[in-house]
Amino acid sequence: MAHIQLSEELPGILGPLTFSPDTAKPLLELAEVLLRGPNSLTSAERELIATYVSSQNDCQFCQLSHGAAAAEHLGGNYDLIDRVKLNYEAAEVSDKIKALLAIAGQVQKGGKQVTSEHIARARQHGATDKEIHDTVLIAAAFCMYNRYVDGLATRQSSDRDTYREMGQRLAKEGYVRTRNPAVEAA
Amino acid sequence: MAHIQLSEELPGILGPLTFSPDTAKPLLELAEVLLRGPNSLTSAERELIATYVSSQNDCQFCQLSHGAAAAEHLGGNYDLIDRVKLNYEAAEVSDKIKALLAIAGQVQKGGKQVTSEHIARARQHGATDKEIHDTVLIAAAFCMYNRYVDGLATRQSSDRDTYREMGQRLAKEGYVRTRNPAVEAA
Repeated sequence: MAHIQLSEELPGILGPLTFSPDTAKPLLELAEVLLRGPNSLTSAERELIATYVSSQNDCQFCQLSHGAAAAEHLGGNYDLIDRVKLNYEAAEVSDKIKALLAIAGQVQKGGKQVTSEHIARARQHGATDKEIHDTVLIAAAFCMYNRYVDGLATRQSSDRDTYREMGQRLAKEGYVRTRNPAVEAA
Repeated sequence: MAHIQLSEELPGILGPLTFSPDTAKPLLELAEVLLRGPNSLTSAERELIATYVSSQNDCQFCQLSHGAAAAEHLGGNYDLIDRVKLNYEAAEVSDKIKALLAIAGQVQKGGKQVTSEHIARARQHGATDKEIHDTVLIAAAFCMYNRYVDGLATRQSSDRDTYREMGQRLAKEGYVRTRNPAVEAA
């Protein structure tokens, strides 16, 4: 049971977003610009960073929903998502993404854990200032979303099909115009 | 030196906010509604929660700037802020705020660290669902802001007078209309 009174049928972050529309607005706008705004990193790559950080924070809802969004952006490649979570250094992603995932993993532990060596590795593989900035902010933002979802003990399904539908919708429609009533009312 | 090219004269979060106006907008709107929106918790109490979490994350810029905002809301009581950071259980704050600070401290460690015992203590001292929700989200959001500031290795002053001015401005003007050029241009 959630720590506060949330609508029973809404899983994960959708409960708190509906509970608090005033904070839902900037939270969803941030996700939209970070994960889907104009960028040299694809949405699949950015969703992958979000998924990896959420898995490091052990947040089931976020890692499965954003993992599904990443997979749907990649034509349904769910296996790749699982391999990145397990060991991204051995997964079939570019050297630049591996270096950015390493930065994201450090941010998850704490901001001061990112060293100039982590940054140098990313630059060596062609990462720009904006890509490094966005990686740090995506990782930081998911340290927030994950804590919001788990800190209120929201209901989280473990049914993969539920997340597949969610991922398809997120990949297609994004975060600002979802079927979440809090957003539609905003 | 910061990990990416940021304007040298802008301290802490102001550098990245100016670097990335598209993400600055929701980030500042979130701070405004969380710390200054209509609420049964005062802005001083909410800034205190933000300060405490930032001190637990060892983020100098955030704990000193939001600590100054909290102190200025309290007529300049900087001593109380220091005592809360040191040991809030022994500080001159209400039992409800102590219980909410305990929840915030758990969120800082990780979302799953908040137990029904932490929630029960807060309810026993009169905390509402909205107050618990907002405490969890403020704590989660500062786990983001702190990582954003430190993950990019931003320049951070240790001069208390700088933060006093910042605190006065934040307490008076808030987060959306600051002197940050990224926001003025938005």
